[in-house]
Order: sequence, then C-alpha cells, then structure tokens
Amino acid sequence: MNSIQNDTFLRTLKQQNTSYTPVWMMRQAGRYLPEYRNTRKNAGSFLELCKNNDFATEVTLQPLDRYPYLDASILFSDILTIPDAMGLGLYFVEGEGPKFERPLQDEKEIQKLDIPNVDEKLHYVFEAVRAIKKALNQRVPLIGFSGSPWTLATYMVEGKGGTNFLNIKKLVYSRPDLMSHILKINTETVTKYLASQIEAGVDAVMIFDSWGGALAHSEYERYSLNYMKVIISNLNLLGYEHIPKIIFTKGGGQWLEAQAKIGASAIGLDWQTDIAKARRIIGNNITLQGNLDPAILLSSPKAIVAAVKKVLDNYGYGEGHIFNLGHGITQFTPPENVQCMLETIRSYSQKFHIE
Amino acid sequence: MNSIQNDTFLRTLKQQNTSYTPVWMMRQAGRYLPEYRNTRKNAGSFLELCKNNDFATEVTLQPLDRYPYLDASILFSDILTIPDAMGLGLYFVEGEGPKFERPLQDEKEIQKLDIPNVDEKLHYVFEAVRAIKKALNQRVPLIGFSGSPWTLATYMVEGKGGTNFLNIKKLVYSRPDLMSHILKINTETVTKYLASQIEAGVDAVMIFDSWGGALAHSEYERYSLNYMKVIISNLNLLGYEHIPKIIFTKGGGQWLEAQAKIGASAIGLDWQTDIAKARRIIGNNITLQGNLDPAILLSSPKAIVAAVKKVLDNYGYGEGHIFNLGHGITQFTPPENVQCMLETIRSYSQKFHIE
Repeated sequence: MNSIQNDTFLRTLKQQNTSYTPVWMMRQAGRYLPEYRNTRKNAGSFLELCKNNDFATEVTLQPLDRYPYLDASILFSDILTIPDAMGLGLYFVEGEGPKFERPLQDEKEIQKLDIPNVDEKLHYVFEAVRAIKKALNQRVPLIGFSGSPWTLATYMVEGKGGTNFLNIKKLVYSRPDLMSHILKINTETVTKYLASQIEAGVDAVMIFDSWGGALAHSEYERYSLNYMKVIISNLNLLGYEHIPKIIFTKGGGQWLEAQAKIGASAIGLDWQTDIAKARRIIGNNITLQGNLDPAILLSSPKAIVAAVKKVLDNYGYGEGHIFNLGHGITQFTPPENVQCMLETIRSYSQKFHIE
Repeated sequence: MNSIQNDTFLRTLKQQNTSYTPVWMMRQAGRYLPEYRNTRKNAGSFLELCKNNDFATEVTLQPLDRYPYLDASILFSDILTIPDAMGLGLYFVEGEGPKFERPLQDEKEIQKLDIPNVDEKLHYVFEAVRAIKKALNQRVPLIGFSGSPWTLATYMVEGKGGTNFLNIKKLVYSRPDLMSHILKINTETVTKYLASQIEAGVDAVMIFDSWGGALAHSEYERYSLNYMKVIISNLNLLGYEHIPKIIFTKGGGQWLEAQAKIGASAIGLDWQTDIAKARRIIGNNITLQGNLDPAILLSSPKAIVAAVKKVLDNYGYGEGHIFNLGHGITQFTPPENVQCMLETIRSYSQKFHIE
C-alpha cells in the first residue's frame, strides 16, 4: 500500500526496522535558507506564502532539494490558521511574531466562538497538501500538522505568543467553564482540520503543543493533554488509525508518563529532556522524536558532530527514534551546519540498527 | 544563638519541627502593593529604590506590615547588581525589563572581565542589609540573594533577559573556554557578594538560577549547577556552614536528582513540578520551597483556597516544606488574594506538623 520511496520515517513511527535513524527538522523550510528568503520576498508576506500553493510547494521542497538526507517533509503552513479561520484576524509584525486583531477578551465573545467551516475557510491548506504531495512524487512522506487546542487557545485569548499567559490562566483558574468551551471548539476544529489534511494526502500528523509547558503540573492533563487525546481517538474512529500521530509539548518533559497514555505513535522531546531517561519512562512501543538543542547548529562542525553523536548514543540501540531538533531551527543557522548534522546522523546511526 | 522571634522559616530549612508550614513570596515587596508603588514614585527609578537604604528598608518591610502571616523577608535588590558593578551599565526601560549598555560581545571584552571590588561597588547592598535588619528588629529572618553565575552570564552576554539565548549558547557550544572564564569570574564574585551579605546580617541566602532551564539537559550541570555547588562549598569553607542556602533553577524540574547533590539546604520548585514527586526524588534531608502557580492569585478566593490546599496535600505530612509561589508574584495580583492564600496556609498546614 505504501509506495513512498524513502519510508524510513514512517517505519520508525511504527517501531519497524530501518537501516539508519531518520531525521527531519522543525521549521526545515525557513529563513535560514537563502532560497526560502528569496521565495518569501517574491510572495510578499508570510501569510501570502502559506496561502499560495505554488509558493508553499516551492518552499516545502527546498530543504529536500538541498539536503538529500532528510527523511520527511512537512506542510508549509502556520499553527494559527485555525483561529484565523474563526475570524480572529491573524497578522504578523516583522520581528514580533503572530498577533490577533480580535483576541477573545470577554465572556460574550467566548460564548459566540464556534467551529468554522473548515473545508471552506481552510481550503487553501488542503490545496497546498495536494500540490505538495504531487510535487514530492513519493520521494519522502509529508507530515501534516496543527496547533494543540490549548496552544491555539493561548494565542486566541492573549492575542499573541510568548506572554506570561496571565489572561488565559485567569480563565483557567476563575472560569473553567469558559476555558472548556474554547478548548472543545478547538478540539473539534483541529480534528476536522487534520482529517481533511489526511484526506488531502498527508502521511502522518503532528500536534504542536508549544505552550503546554506553561501550565501547572496539576492542570496540564486537564487543559492540554486530554484534548489531544480526544483528537487522536476521534481520528482513529474516523478511520485514520493507520496514520501515525505525533504529539509535542514543549516544556513538557516532566509529564512523559501521562503523554505515553493517549495513543500517540510518537512523542516529541525538547532539548531539556534526556532522551535516554525518556525512553526508560515510555518504553519501546512509542517512538521518540528529538532532541538536539537548535543552538548547537550555530557552532562549529566539531561541536555539532559530538552533540549529534551524543543524542544518538543516548537513545541507544534499536528502533523508535526520529532525529529532530528540540525546537524549530533558528534563522541564524548556517546551512552548511545542517549538512554536517545530517551526514553525521546518516553515518553514525547505522550501528544502532540491525535489519 | 538565634534570637529571631519567628524562626519557623529557619527551622524548616533545617528540617526541624514547626507547628505550621512557613511561607514567603518571591517579589513579595513589589508592584502589586499600592504602598510599594507609592514609595517607588517617591524614589524615582527602580535602581534608586535599590540604592537608597531608607527606601529599600521601607519596601522590604511593607509586605510584613500588611501580612502578619509572612514568615520571612527578603532583601530588596536586583539580581543584576553584580554585572552592574562589573561596569556593564544596568538600566531599565519601563515595561521591557533590565538591559545592559555594554554587553559582552567579543573575546577581548570577555577576557578583560574581572572580579569587581565587591565591598566598594556593592556597598549600598550591604548597607541596605544592615538597615533592614535593624528595622526588622528580629521579627522574622532576612534572606539575602544573588543571581546564579549562569543566569548573570545570560544577561551579561545577551544584554537583556527573556531572549532565545542564542548568543550565550553560541559561546557554550563554540567557545567553552570563554564561557568558563565568565562563569569563574561570576562564581568568585557571587561568593564574595553573598559572604558580605552574611557578614552584614542576612540569615539565609538564595541563589536564583532564573535561566538555567534554557540549557540542554546535557549542559546544565557543567554550565550552571556546578558553579552553584562551588559557591556553596566556598561559603562553607569561609565559615558560613550554619547559614542555610537555597537554590532555584526555574524550568529545572527535570534535574532534581543532580540539584540534591550540591549541598543546598533547600531547592526551589516552579509550578510545572509536582512537589510530591520532587519529595520522593530528593528525600527528607533537603527542604523544598514552592510551588503555587502565581497566576492562581489572579482568580477567586475559592480557587485559591483549593489550590493552596492541593500544594500542602501534595507535600504531605512532616517537616521540610516552605510554601512559596513557583515564580515571582505578578504585579496584577489583588492584595486581598494574598491574604486569602496566607490564611489558608496558616490554618490548613497545621495538621501536617506534629511537634
């Protein structure tokens, strides 16, 4: 059934034998690549880049063309397409990250929030998936993705990212009823969104819980993890049990036991988490994805080689490891350092695999 | 020898019996208090507030006067007094946090960095300690503090806080020799700084490792924890073994085993860490300090009471717990919510203590 030429990534998601450790990078299509910056300039804004199939396809394939050792591609899009489709008005200020024109600021606005017509409003995403799949021509798998219900909610309530999360935490602690309303709407929308990405052709899906780590240990399961669990269950009920599902809570390394119980095929790890310890905690039936500090790619080849080997050594022998960074690659990364990382992974990882 | 009237905090740091769980709050003298905002207005800038004994004493005592249930006071100062004394030019931009005029940007500047004359340059801090101790009149203990060598270095290299730490990480990964030079200078300076605070009268010291959590799991001990260990050892060698020492790495909840081995009397916990699990890991010979999410204080009395009880329940029976927030109190906290928290701690915690 699977006619993808390089299926190492998909095999690893199923803990099947491979001859080396597969790798892809979060934000691999991005500003560190001169060819990306060039396309971006032609497209105009970041959102126009996402919404134009030709441009989105072009940038998705750029890292694959430059680096033959990448084992997966990821849809070029933004985690905030959903709240944008809900009418909150996504916009970008250069150097400041994404913002919303109309964040959810009072009870009335929250009560009015409803599931958008995903197929209509997010049509451009599914079109991009189809265009990218066609251009990939089965070279490597394509990953679809969404923000987690909690992470989307943080942007929807705060109006931007990277805050102290005081507005949304006030909701968590004072009005769990309103918080739960937002999260349920987000959960249904994300489920539909990922289902349509799968229908359009993605080979795996990933849920980015970028701000789950801001929650208190006592609230993480209730406000973030459980909603990701519902999405996974519902995708399975919809008939997408064969599609691997990856979750990644940045800053969530203390909660791996709980993460291992929601039915995900793989768990992403940030660089603060020891992958050897994570493997001991979650066992061999769930794949681990990670976890090199992206800042290492700003240093020298010698340091990169040593750090890459350390991650592979820490995971150790056997299947179930997808190499990745612990967070998105930074825009200041010299492209040749990525090449150095990828060559090291391909050559050094073979000894850990027995076919 | 100890003539402090309320010594519950100090007894708990030594795992001795007390009749209730003591409490203080990080940034308890701060903007959430109208009386603080008033003094601040009179002082002019934040730095002038720190550098004037009368003002520093006034604001240190304000929370104690308002809340009789607080069991400790903390020196009113800033963690960045040391790099300021080193000549980097600390300044504050309203709403943006601390910055430095002359961050360490090249090898030459780093090589020139030297231990400042602490007693001369930071004279105002030790004067403040003496003035505060006098004004406290032995009501409760006074905590002295410093930033950790790593945390000070992040500000010194990045020029400000809350960044992606790419500049300092580039040093970590490319020039560990230069990084180690900065950290050694900082370690010697912090040791001298805390020793002089102890000589001036503080009853305990705390090392704030606010950005230790940004390090990779494989680098935390080498670049942050080990230097805190050296400070503790050297303070002990200088004859301050009887002074309790608290460490707090924000975002460091995955590294408690290592933290338990450096000779600290207490370990601070952020709100992402489960205090019950932390106690199982570190045992009963080290005190735990924490760990209520400060955002809970923006909610309702009912939610606050439930959350405070949950922290106390999670720690459980016996000595060795100092109640605190998992991070500084936010400026938006209604002062009456602090009162609610303190009353709940005092009344509910008694059942956990057997004298």
